[in-house]
Amino acid sequence: MTGTVYLVGSGPGDPDLMTVKARRLIEEADVILHDKLPGPAILDQLPADAREDVGKRAGGERTSQEHTNRRMVELAREGKSVVRLKGGDPFVFGRGGEEAEYLAAHDVPFEVVPGVTSAVAGPGVSGIPLTHREHTSSVSFVTGHEDPTKDESAVDWEALAATGGTIVVLMGVGKLPAYTQALLDAGLAADTPVALVERATWPDQRVACGTLETAVDVRDREEIEPPALTIIGTVAATRERVFDYLRNSTQEVHQ
Amino acid sequence: MTGTVYLVGSGPGDPDLMTVKARRLIEEADVILHDKLPGPAILDQLPADAREDVGKRAGGERTSQEHTNRRMVELAREGKSVVRLKGGDPFVFGRGGEEAEYLAAHDVPFEVVPGVTSAVAGPGVSGIPLTHREHTSSVSFVTGHEDPTKDESAVDWEALAATGGTIVVLMGVGKLPAYTQALLDAGLAADTPVALVERATWPDQRVACGTLETAVDVRDREEIEPPALTIIGTVAATRERVFDYLRNSTQEVHQ
Ligand SMILES: C[S@@+](CC[C@H](N)C(=O)[O-])C[C@H]1O[C@@H](n2cnc3c(N)ncnc32)[C@H](O)[C@@H]1O
Ligand SMILES: C[S@@+](CC[C@H](N)C(=O)[O-])C[C@H]1O[C@@H](n2cnc3c(N)ncnc32)[C@H](O)[C@@H]1O
Repeated sequence: MTGTVYLVGSGPGDPDLMTVKARRLIEEADVILHDKLPGPAILDQLPADAREDVGKRAGGERTSQEHTNRRMVELAREGKSVVRLKGGDPFVFGRGGEEAEYLAAHDVPFEVVPGVTSAVAGPGVSGIPLTHREHTSSVSFVTGHEDPTKDESAVDWEALAATGGTIVVLMGVGKLPAYTQALLDAGLAADTPVALVERATWPDQRVACGTLETAVDVRDREEIEPPALTIIGTVAATRERVFDYLRNSTQEVHQ
Repeated sequence: MTGTVYLVGSGPGDPDLMTVKARRLIEEADVILHDKLPGPAILDQLPADAREDVGKRAGGERTSQEHTNRRMVELAREGKSVVRLKGGDPFVFGRGGEEAEYLAAHDVPFEVVPGVTSAVAGPGVSGIPLTHREHTSSVSFVTGHEDPTKDESAVDWEALAATGGTIVVLMGVGKLPAYTQALLDAGLAADTPVALVERATWPDQRVACGTLETAVDVRDREEIEPPALTIIGTVAATRERVFDYLRNSTQEVHQ
């Protein structure tokens, strides 16, 4: 009997923001395949005899993704119950889709267990709503990893700007100068509010605020590093209005 | 001492997809203000002596939102610990932002407790990744509630189509004909895959698949009703490829 693979989202990092189901599956799993993205607080709680780090590239394999795929299938074929633990939600920029297709192609049954994505939780705990009934009818999550000056870039920043909605950039610390410029070129106002949320819901979470024009300076001054989110849009200014009453278990820096 | 108001996301409906923190806050709260959106499975589990339905319009008040706002402040001023329970995530099309601003304006401390939004969970449990490293670099959540033929519509369907990313429409059962047409007019291909996910993660969840051209017929034939999500984009076709191996606790209909 082939075992089942559970593609499980671990949430943004605070163990209390894991789902009840994720907790239970972790306790019951024979093996938990993980990388570094779930964050230290959650990784430290994993049962020591079941956890296996697949985040690093293994000898003989070209990428850690190939290694992960192979291990999921191997273990399931041994009849094991396997949790593939992924930061945030498994299907939001997490290669969960590729893993699901790989499992199906290799006749391995799987279940998807959604988690709280950092793209929603980061703004949330920072006091930033993603939408607003009166002035923001959409929110887009986008990767900042691709270079917007390259021709082959799949991200159309002009179209994203034209939606008029909130933009949340993941993997977007390094290329912040390029895509803030692309959004300015596309016609977004220089004073469009921007918030940078580093290690959202981790004990050392930090939030730094600025505008589309000042965001790069803010990043440099505060030395914001990955994992972090960039939130762009009028909603980002909400934080300032509500901050004095915002309580959170995690520490925050207010700029 | 003014009590704290917790703006808590209850997730898409399966009680197992609540966060550990939401569970604990519900157990400890003096009062839980809720409407119908968390769904029957979660509402049935709420402690009977603490729950208060604010979903219906109360006598003397123009909207249930005004009533909810007033009750949150009243109860907090009595020193109560208040959970404002919202379906999915409180800050994704949930008026959570307005509630946060109201609380801050009335000197009431609050905390935001993110939840698994239906916009992520619905695709996930249906075997539909929101993004794909090779061909989908963004995902947009948008309200389908506004009439796209009206001039004052805040949703720019042409810009959304131009992003090339996945589009997830919330509150979009009724106006499906209007916005699928708007997306076709904007140049999206008629055979762009579309999935409708009704009551995601509820025991009677249903998923129906089609294309931008057939979506309205599929909706009518299957009698899809709110709450439901419309997922538009190449990723929606993943479901078909993985379906035979997709396990889920909730029942599903495969078209
Ligand atoms: C490969 S993506 C995976 C996203 C994940 N599947 C999710 O749903 O959150 C990694 C990116 O997610 C964002 N991220 C993940 N966890 C974060 C956290 N706790 N705080 C801020 N950003 C985070 C960062 O932008 C990071 O570069
Ligand atoms: C006012 S919005 C609230 C969204 C909520 N805050 C969230 O994050 O899921 C209500 C819409 O969410 C979507 N929705 C909520 N729960 C759902 C579920 N279990 N299945 C499908 N759609 C759902 C539907 O599109 C519904 O019309």
